[in-house]
Amino acid sequence: MEPRVSIVTIAVDDLDREASFYQAMGLTRHRIDDGVAFFQMGGVILALFPRESAEEDAGVSFGAGVSRVYLAYNTRSHTEVNEVLELAAQSGGRIVKPAGRAFWGGWYGYFADPEGNIWEVAHNPDFPIDAEGRISLPA
Amino acid sequence: MEPRVSIVTIAVDDLDREASFYQAMGLTRHRIDDGVAFFQMGGVILALFPRESAEEDAGVSFGAGVSRVYLAYNTRSHTEVNEVLELAAQSGGRIVKPAGRAFWGGWYGYFADPEGNIWEVAHNPDFPIDAEGRISLPA
Repeated sequence: MEPRVSIVTIAVDDLDREASFYQAMGLTRHRIDDGVAFFQMGGVILALFPRESAEEDAGVSFGAGVSRVYLAYNTRSHTEVNEVLELAAQSGGRIVKPAGRAFWGGWYGYFADPEGNIWEVAHNPDFPIDAEGRISLPA
Repeated sequence: MEPRVSIVTIAVDDLDREASFYQAMGLTRHRIDDGVAFFQMGGVILALFPRESAEEDAGVSFGAGVSRVYLAYNTRSHTEVNEVLELAAQSGGRIVKPAGRAFWGGWYGYFADPEGNIWEVAHNPDFPIDAEGRISLPA
């Protein structure tokens, strides 16, 4: 296994609502197939796939409640954290944890998308982000 | 929001067991902090964070059962799908769906890590992977 994540899929109950939220967040939906919403996220793809289709495809049933797998969007500045959280609230999501000082020294908060999927939004100067948006752990 | 995912976090019950699995899969753990396992996955970071810590940090309780957010590892060849699934089974995970032909034309299957977190493993010639492991949607 080479070190990469190719696709992050969120199994959704309401594809249109979820896709509209991520479009309102500034992302561009690629319409390869109306049954799934794809977003090119730098070198990774974010996919929204209807829950029933995903369960049928994988042969598993998803659990209820908040997902134990969640995403983070790291920002290039302190103020961008607040902006992204506000944008999420205005786009049909909600702020789960308002922006504040992190114990690890940065600035961060959390939002949930319309179906409760969690994103951390963080400014962490110790984890550099390059021009293409790729993040790195400290050396 | 720029189009990127920075970190994918899995909230885990047993950090050592989960970290050992991903190391057995061929990934390198970066020990910045013993309380979290970080893996540099190309331009994205995979983090394993103890469930209690994650719940306290975000102020949410995670649901039970299989996560609705799951990951995919896309391969560079058809045979690599089988190899990655076998490696997962040998590393303490299990094959959820054996490798087979996909309705979208490629070859794929699913494995679960020791705590049941799902990864799709897929060879999809329509989604090119560059030398650095970055995947792209079709133009």
